[in-house]
Amino acid sequence: MGACPRGRVEEEALEAIRPGPLQLRLLEAFYSMLKRRLEACILERGIRALVEAEGSYAKGTLTSDKWELDVFLLVEGASAAWIKSRGEGLLLECLRGLPVEARYAEHPYVTVRLMGLEADVVIAPRVPRPGAGGTGVERTPFHTRWVREQLERNPCLADDVRLFKAFLKGIGAYGAETRVGGFSGLLAEVLVIYHGGFRLLLEEATHWRPGSYVDPLGLGDEAALRARYPDSPLIVPDPVDPRRNAAAAVTTRRLAELVVAAAAYLERPCTAYYKPSPRPWGPYYKPDPARVAALELLGDYAGEPRDALWGRLTRLASWLAGGLGELGFEVARWEVDTDEATRALVAIELASPAVPGLQLSRGPPAWSVRRALGYIARRAGQGLPYTIAGDGTLRGLRPRRYTRASEALEWLASRPDAPLPRGTREARVHPPGSPGAVEAAALIESRTPSWPLCLALQDA
Amino acid sequence: MGACPRGRVEEEALEAIRPGPLQLRLLEAFYSMLKRRLEACILERGIRALVEAEGSYAKGTLTSDKWELDVFLLVEGASAAWIKSRGEGLLLECLRGLPVEARYAEHPYVTVRLMGLEADVVIAPRVPRPGAGGTGVERTPFHTRWVREQLERNPCLADDVRLFKAFLKGIGAYGAETRVGGFSGLLAEVLVIYHGGFRLLLEEATHWRPGSYVDPLGLGDEAALRARYPDSPLIVPDPVDPRRNAAAAVTTRRLAELVVAAAAYLERPCTAYYKPSPRPWGPYYKPDPARVAALELLGDYAGEPRDALWGRLTRLASWLAGGLGELGFEVARWEVDTDEATRALVAIELASPAVPGLQLSRGPPAWSVRRALGYIARRAGQGLPYTIAGDGTLRGLRPRRYTRASEALEWLASRPDAPLPRGTREARVHPPGSPGAVEAAALIESRTPSWPLCLALQDA
Repeated sequence: MGACPRGRVEEEALEAIRPGPLQLRLLEAFYSMLKRRLEACILERGIRALVEAEGSYAKGTLTSDKWELDVFLLVEGASAAWIKSRGEGLLLECLRGLPVEARYAEHPYVTVRLMGLEADVVIAPRVPRPGAGGTGVERTPFHTRWVREQLERNPCLADDVRLFKAFLKGIGAYGAETRVGGFSGLLAEVLVIYHGGFRLLLEEATHWRPGSYVDPLGLGDEAALRARYPDSPLIVPDPVDPRRNAAAAVTTRRLAELVVAAAAYLERPCTAYYKPSPRPWGPYYKPDPARVAALELLGDYAGEPRDALWGRLTRLASWLAGGLGELGFEVARWEVDTDEATRALVAIELASPAVPGLQLSRGPPAWSVRRALGYIARRAGQGLPYTIAGDGTLRGLRPRRYTRASEALEWLASRPDAPLPRGTREARVHPPGSPGAVEAAALIESRTPSWPLCLALQDA
Repeated sequence: MGACPRGRVEEEALEAIRPGPLQLRLLEAFYSMLKRRLEACILERGIRALVEAEGSYAKGTLTSDKWELDVFLLVEGASAAWIKSRGEGLLLECLRGLPVEARYAEHPYVTVRLMGLEADVVIAPRVPRPGAGGTGVERTPFHTRWVREQLERNPCLADDVRLFKAFLKGIGAYGAETRVGGFSGLLAEVLVIYHGGFRLLLEEATHWRPGSYVDPLGLGDEAALRARYPDSPLIVPDPVDPRRNAAAAVTTRRLAELVVAAAAYLERPCTAYYKPSPRPWGPYYKPDPARVAALELLGDYAGEPRDALWGRLTRLASWLAGGLGELGFEVARWEVDTDEATRALVAIELASPAVPGLQLSRGPPAWSVRRALGYIARRAGQGLPYTIAGDGTLRGLRPRRYTRASEALEWLASRPDAPLPRGTREARVHPPGSPGAVEAAALIESRTPSWPLCLALQDA
């Protein structure tokens, strides 16, 4: 591996990112056991199917923090309807006796957890080409095959993929799920392969903007993809199904985070960008619980699809931040978390937990005479000043409804139009400085990357 | 006078606005005395000149609060240069023995103060037509004649002029001097005459906007006037010299104040708009000295032209308000005052005398990569949060340099680029709540109109 052209920081980082021999041995044993079980089970039932490992384990792009497998049971000649109605039942029968958990999703799968290892076992129809079939998972075996082929041709890229995945994790942009809105493992692999390496990819990424089309191998039809994904800030044709955007999950925010972090890293490479990292880097800042307010939600969330729940929490947090802003509180950032079962938390970091009772208000121009008179009448009725600025626009003071963020949050959360997630029974506000705020500050801290420290060190 | 068509509120207001008989008798006696003195003096010196009363006394548009005269000594065949070099000396000789005060201005004049009466005695060349001569004052006799002729034709308009002048005073928009930037007495007369009455004028005024051209008699050449006065928000051709804009002094702010007040008055007429007013109306609100900061200036201001001094004070106040705003303090309004001799005061009303130590800051978009990295590096260096918003823009917190308005004001006033008026020796900050702030709050209160109360009463 030393023959691959790579910088000192990347080599140092890889020591921590590459999977260890124990990890590989355990996963292999786990996979063999599952494969044997599944094969015996389908044989017994006369079902013609193939058991195959997928994902980073199968592709050889595993990182040291991933003790997980993806196992696919690919059923010959199965219809999507059959998979949907029988799939989960079949998996549960085949894996009986193992610690198994099923959860609703677009396609049936079960999770097996054993001795710190975890396997997602997916059942899907075996299809002749990607895009046939209906749910999307039947594309996975083709992805596995494509990535393996590419890495066989250029073995250096396996470590480059590992670096990029660890980089994405380190900057908080790894994962296509709604909770993250970032880059999937597959997208990470595709991008590294498309650009021929980690550094080459980062250099390209610094030029990406919302609306970028990334297709260095010329696989896709740009116009068709743009028409099909008008809202995607980034379009990357899927190598096995180029009508599809492999970056459809990427949000503008995560794209922006990659662009900025890539530029910063190229300016000064540093292991703080990677997770796992060879050295323990802390978050670049710790929020002060005296400036953090929390909304704790209690309810029944286990029945909700994960993506929907996280999506609702994100919308709620954004709605609360907007409402606080309108009430005159300055929101620095927010984070949400949930155990996906009974509890969720919205953590909001403010510039200040309390604000003055009066606030500047920008009024209408005097030439909007009716609105101007209403504006003046309100001020006169409350004994508050207004003035006419040099350009003829009114301005004045208005009382803030709340001077404490916790009171404002209480009011917002109790509004009938508050977009609380379905199943919420209770919403509790934890004011800045309280134990609940300490927990919320810890949540924010846990979502805070380390890499800006490298920039600060450079500046110092 | 009862025969003139007018509303009840206007009739009530006029009781207080019309000059009283004693006032008229005293001014008449004062004028006769000055006229006799001046005529004897020029006769003695063999100067051919005419003594004439001008202004509202001469035009019959005097209001009850004006115990002042304008007297012109119009010298036959005098050049502008002769007036400039000899004028003031001649006036001082002619008025010897009277309490006289001379002050530098564009044209020579002296002020005589006697038993509460005041006369500005102006010396100017007698010219054959307005616009001949160089300083502008030689237009005054033509204005006096034009207004008298118009009012003779329609005697009701004299009281309408009085109403409009008192209205302008009540809303703080009366006066063409820099200190006010409003409507001169002549402009008030011209506008009432042009529109045929007070109410008709107010109705028109509600439609005015920056850029309005007001010439119902079609006296002016609109294109030429617009070219000559590109920055005037309001153009009103001077009836005796229509190439000139009689509204050249009006600022956008005062125009806006008239537009809004006219609309409010027409919605509900009320004597609070007038000054003098038949009833004692207080200001519509009283500023709290706990929210008012003051900058007191001590120096030698007697040698400065008034307009220049007031202009500089206004610029200073606006600069201070802008600086406070950049430092995170919300300025509701400000007012300036000076005795035009040794002292000036800038009064600033704030939303709050103190603000939190941190402030929201809007950063660059992530796509401005270099600026974005600098923004992040600063936050990381200070242990402050940043985040990337949904649109890819950075935002974060930044420390405020000052949390008390008085400290911020102290820093601003001591900056070498602070535009303090010429002659300032000392600048003292009076923090909110201090005795100096009480004085400043009183200044703001004295500049606060009453009329918004009428709107509030209507709403209640």
